[in-house]
Amino acid sequence: MRVAIVGSTGAVGQELLELLAERSFPLTSVRLFASARSAGQERRFAGETLRVERLPEDGDLGVDIVFSSAGSSVSRACAWRWAEHGAVVIDNTSAWRLDPRVPLVVPEVNPGAVHEHQGVIANPNCSTIIALLALAPLHAAFGLRRATLATYQAVSGAGQAGIAELTEQTRVVLDGGRARPNVFSHQIAFNLFSHDSAVGPDGYNHEETKLLLESRKILAAPDLLLSATCVRVPVLRAHAEAIHAEFARRVVETEARTVLAGARGVRLVDDRESNTFPMPLEATGRDEVLVGRVRADASSPGGLALFVVGDQIRKGAALNAVQIAEILGGTSGLGARLKG
Amino acid sequence: MRVAIVGSTGAVGQELLELLAERSFPLTSVRLFASARSAGQERRFAGETLRVERLPEDGDLGVDIVFSSAGSSVSRACAWRWAEHGAVVIDNTSAWRLDPRVPLVVPEVNPGAVHEHQGVIANPNCSTIIALLALAPLHAAFGLRRATLATYQAVSGAGQAGIAELTEQTRVVLDGGRARPNVFSHQIAFNLFSHDSAVGPDGYNHEETKLLLESRKILAAPDLLLSATCVRVPVLRAHAEAIHAEFARRVVETEARTVLAGARGVRLVDDRESNTFPMPLEATGRDEVLVGRVRADASSPGGLALFVVGDQIRKGAALNAVQIAEILGGTSGLGARLKG
Repeated sequence: MRVAIVGSTGAVGQELLELLAERSFPLTSVRLFASARSAGQERRFAGETLRVERLPEDGDLGVDIVFSSAGSSVSRACAWRWAEHGAVVIDNTSAWRLDPRVPLVVPEVNPGAVHEHQGVIANPNCSTIIALLALAPLHAAFGLRRATLATYQAVSGAGQAGIAELTEQTRVVLDGGRARPNVFSHQIAFNLFSHDSAVGPDGYNHEETKLLLESRKILAAPDLLLSATCVRVPVLRAHAEAIHAEFARRVVETEARTVLAGARGVRLVDDRESNTFPMPLEATGRDEVLVGRVRADASSPGGLALFVVGDQIRKGAALNAVQIAEILGGTSGLGARLKG
Repeated sequence: MRVAIVGSTGAVGQELLELLAERSFPLTSVRLFASARSAGQERRFAGETLRVERLPEDGDLGVDIVFSSAGSSVSRACAWRWAEHGAVVIDNTSAWRLDPRVPLVVPEVNPGAVHEHQGVIANPNCSTIIALLALAPLHAAFGLRRATLATYQAVSGAGQAGIAELTEQTRVVLDGGRARPNVFSHQIAFNLFSHDSAVGPDGYNHEETKLLLESRKILAAPDLLLSATCVRVPVLRAHAEAIHAEFARRVVETEARTVLAGARGVRLVDDRESNTFPMPLEATGRDEVLVGRVRADASSPGGLALFVVGDQIRKGAALNAVQIAEILGGTSGLGARLKG
């Protein structure tokens, strides 16, 4: 397969390139695209040097799969044009996620949806992917009705610029200087703030609304109730989420633990004795989403509380996209098993 | 009044001393006590130099009010002995909070309980105080039934040593070094973790259980349902909490906002247009608890979601204790008004 990465110099773009090599993705060629500013840069891949190109005007990237990670405006303008030229677009932005023509896929959850694509497949929001790795198997077993979530989101959600802002700003503050927020609206060093996406008339910001609407679509659960509070914290690249969930069936804690222990893409990290639970530091660089603090919700009979942490750039974005490509290519353990 | 601060060289002890000066607390003398290690140190107060003393063996501190901030083991061993010598002990530790002889007081919420003391009055846990500043007035108006909370707790909860560990460890990590956790069980720089208090058989850690049991006692609401997930984050000295709450009465968002706008000790920071909501950085050094993100809970008809942030050392500990002392001394606006 011939592959293109659009937005190849960003945090997710670079992770995509690394994952294609690491997972021996069956490709015949890779083309890297980025904005005019980054065009001309070089990247190493499988012993070769690739030059970053500008996007061609005519929309013909000459590839079979496009990973689109250059932002919503690029995907909104270009995704269907790339598809018209024969590519399948795996879109890492929010541009087409809720479009009825576009499957929204978490490979461990709804891999079959990949095959319903019309040229564009959407990768969900990072917070949605990470939450659903734990919630989807519980939903399958017990019937998820309602969830409240509070997120602890890493700065990598704003890309490399977000990571750089946290580290550089932290240095300045430690040296007694004054933080000058640029990527984020507020100081992030030793601080936290409500996710700085726009807030709708219902008081929920876009990140929170994505969590609700994307979860409904992926789980095919239009009546799911979900309320999230999304918060940016001074952590580099893994998101955490505290979740309280209610189900159609009363959940017994041990049953939930059994379900999660057998869930694909999940690693249970839940040792009460030694106080060992999921942490961003441990989730960083890992494929699995870490799940722990699994306990009966003391405030809701039959409900469940848990804490999930996942690498935002990896499973929250790049890995999920590569897994979708593997299903398309027929090389995915996930796709093969669940298609059959 | 003659006042003593036990644990006077700790973060809360020092804040207590500053607050006594700042609020012109009507005192005739201050004695500072600390462990043998810190005895002999000097502190400035109202133009005088005070020498830090070791605790006398006989338990007679020769004062009218003791602020006890040296840890639970000291309060467990000494509080009632100090009281036998005629002092009223305002205990900043968890030692006696749930003892039926001991009032547990948030002055904005249940100031009258101060007068029922038998020699010892307990200051609640910082997370409880900060949550209840918002939840108590909502409870009074609508009848709180259930709340789920996720906390974002600053390192100051572990005192000056916690603050030092975050700043020093952050420096080390920024310089490419390896963090060596000491005060906390895990790396706190650019990381977060489930609150490292012991976990009970129900899967809740002590911090979370305190939130439940202390809230029930302070609100005199023995049937209150509350489930918390307490998390330590790399923030210096203000705690944040994402709260979802359900009430006996269906709450309309504008009503809730009116209640909170008129609540004592609360400052509404809730501008959706400019994305201005409570942040630890803004709460630091402030008396008020900041409340924002007030919105109808999309997952629960009549429920409410909100986000609160308060200075952990100040309102979460030292200020609350001084306010209790002001009620005892009859100089509190809070006590006077609510007693009458």
